[in-house]
Amino acid sequence: MSGVSPEQAAVEAEVTEAVLRSFDGTPDPRLREVLCSLVTHLHAFARDVRLTEPEWDAAVRFLTRVGHITDDRRQEFVLLSDVLGLSMLTVGINQPVDGDATEATVFGPFFTEDAPLVELGGDIAAGAVGEPCWVEGSIRSTTGEPIPGARIEVWEADEDGLYDVQYADGRTAGRAHLFADDNGYYRFWGVFPTPYPIPHDGPVGDLLAATGRSPWRASHLHFMVTAPGYRRLVTHIFVEGDPQLADDAVFGVKPSLIKPFTHHAAGETAPDGSVPQERWAATRFDIVLPPES
Amino acid sequence: MSGVSPEQAAVEAEVTEAVLRSFDGTPDPRLREVLCSLVTHLHAFARDVRLTEPEWDAAVRFLTRVGHITDDRRQEFVLLSDVLGLSMLTVGINQPVDGDATEATVFGPFFTEDAPLVELGGDIAAGAVGEPCWVEGSIRSTTGEPIPGARIEVWEADEDGLYDVQYADGRTAGRAHLFADDNGYYRFWGVFPTPYPIPHDGPVGDLLAATGRSPWRASHLHFMVTAPGYRRLVTHIFVEGDPQLADDAVFGVKPSLIKPFTHHAAGETAPDGSVPQERWAATRFDIVLPPES
Repeated sequence: MSGVSPEQAAVEAEVTEAVLRSFDGTPDPRLREVLCSLVTHLHAFARDVRLTEPEWDAAVRFLTRVGHITDDRRQEFVLLSDVLGLSMLTVGINQPVDGDATEATVFGPFFTEDAPLVELGGDIAAGAVGEPCWVEGSIRSTTGEPIPGARIEVWEADEDGLYDVQYADGRTAGRAHLFADDNGYYRFWGVFPTPYPIPHDGPVGDLLAATGRSPWRASHLHFMVTAPGYRRLVTHIFVEGDPQLADDAVFGVKPSLIKPFTHHAAGETAPDGSVPQERWAATRFDIVLPPES
Repeated sequence: MSGVSPEQAAVEAEVTEAVLRSFDGTPDPRLREVLCSLVTHLHAFARDVRLTEPEWDAAVRFLTRVGHITDDRRQEFVLLSDVLGLSMLTVGINQPVDGDATEATVFGPFFTEDAPLVELGGDIAAGAVGEPCWVEGSIRSTTGEPIPGARIEVWEADEDGLYDVQYADGRTAGRAHLFADDNGYYRFWGVFPTPYPIPHDGPVGDLLAATGRSPWRASHLHFMVTAPGYRRLVTHIFVEGDPQLADDAVFGVKPSLIKPFTHHAAGETAPDGSVPQERWAATRFDIVLPPES
C-alpha cells in the first residue's frame, strides 16, 4: 500500500466495509463468517497487488475457461484448488496432526463410491496394467489397539498413468474395498504406482506452463480408511526414490507417507505363497487412526 | 487460529510455503507477484475460518454453477465480482481519488463498442421506453479548462429495467456516443433511470438470497468519457431520492455521483426549446477529468 494516500486508502477501506455490512442480515452465522473472511482477504489481495483492470479481466476470462471445461468427467476447479495448494491446506486443517496418527493427503478427483469388494490377499488390479505389487499392513488406534474390520478403500492409476474412470469403456480396475482381519491386518495385490501428469490441456495446465511448473504427480496409491469411533483417513502412500517426490503438482507429499518398495524377480515366492511369473514389487503400510473428535 | 497447536500451525504454514516456492521459476515477475499474493491471502482465509471439507465441496459446486451459466450473453463471474465488491474496489484502485476529478464507479456488463453517434441535443433513447430525460453538463479538467471534443459514451436501461442487449431482437436503444462542443459542453435526451435487479436466477442470485441481500441496483445512467491527455472516466449518475441508493447490489453508489433530477409537466418548454407532449425530467452532470498519469 506504499504510495497510496490516506484519502485513497480510506476510499478503498470503505468499499470493503460496505460489503461486510451487506452480510449483516445473513441468517446462517457460519455463512456470514465465511463470506466476511473471504471478502476481507480477497480485497486485501486486490489492494496489496494494486490489481489492474486488465488483470481483473484476465481473471474473469480464466475462471470462465475453468468453468467451461468442467463437466461430469473433469473438474477443473478441483484441479485449480489442487495446484494452488488449497486442497492440501484444507486436508491439513480438517485432518490435523494427532500424535502418531497416519497423516492425510489430498482426496483427488478419481475416487468412486462403488468400488468392488476384494477378499484379503486378492487382486485389486482387475486387469489394470502394471508390475504386480503386494501391499500389506496393520490398522491400529493411536493407543496401539488393532482395529479389526476397518474398511479400506484403495484406488490407483495403471502404469499408463490413467485411472479406470479416465477410459471411455466403463471399466472398473485398480480400485477396491477390503476389510481388515480380526487382528486389524490387511493385504492385497495391486500394481506398482507410476508418476502421471494431472490433466494439463486446459486453463490450469496453462497456469502451470506460465509459471514454469510441472504437471506431474509423484507416484502414489490412494487409501481411505474408516472404522466406527475413528476419524476417517484419506491418504496416499508414495514410492521412496521417486524423482517426482520433491515436485508434486498438488503438494500432496509428506515424508511420513513415503514408503520403501522392494522389487523381486519372476519366480521369487511372494508373501502370500504364490510364485509370480513376472517381476513383482512389495511394500508395507501400517496405518494409525486417531479417535473421532 | 485459536486452538491450533504450534505443531499443527507449522504443518499448515509449510503447505503455503511450498506453494509459494513453486512459483520461484515464473518468468513474468508480475504474474509471480500476483499469484504469490493470491495464494497467501487464499490460504489465510482457509486457515482463519478453519474451512471444512464440506464447505470446500460447496465452493467447488458453486463455482461450477457460475461457470456453467456463463455464456456470450451472461457473465456470472463478473456478477460475482460485483456483489463481493471486488469490481468496485478494482475501479477504486485504478481510478483513484484525484482532487475534484469526477469519481468513477463500476463498468458493468452492458457496454457495447458500437453505440451510434448522436448529435448534441439528440435522442439516445431511440425507442427505449421511459420518461424523456434531458441531460446536460460541462466537461472540464481538474484545473478548470473546458475539454472541447471530449467523447462521451452513455448507456442505460429502459423503464422495464432492461438494456437493449438483454432483448433477443437485436435492437440498439438507450445508448450512444457524442462529442462535447467547442466550449466542452454536452446535452442529450435519454430516459429517466429506474431501478432494476441484476440477473438473480443463478448462483449469484442464490448467494444474495442466502445472505438476505437485495439484487436491486440503484437507478443510474452510465457514462464513459475519454479525451486525449486525460484519464478515462467510467462512471454513473444516480437519482437523488431513489430509495435503492443505500442498498445498491454492487456497491456502486458514491455521494458525489447522486444528482437532483427535476420533473416537468407535459407542455412545459424544455431547455432545448422543444415542448414535450408528455411528462419529462432533467438533470445536470458536470464532469471533471484528471490528467493522464
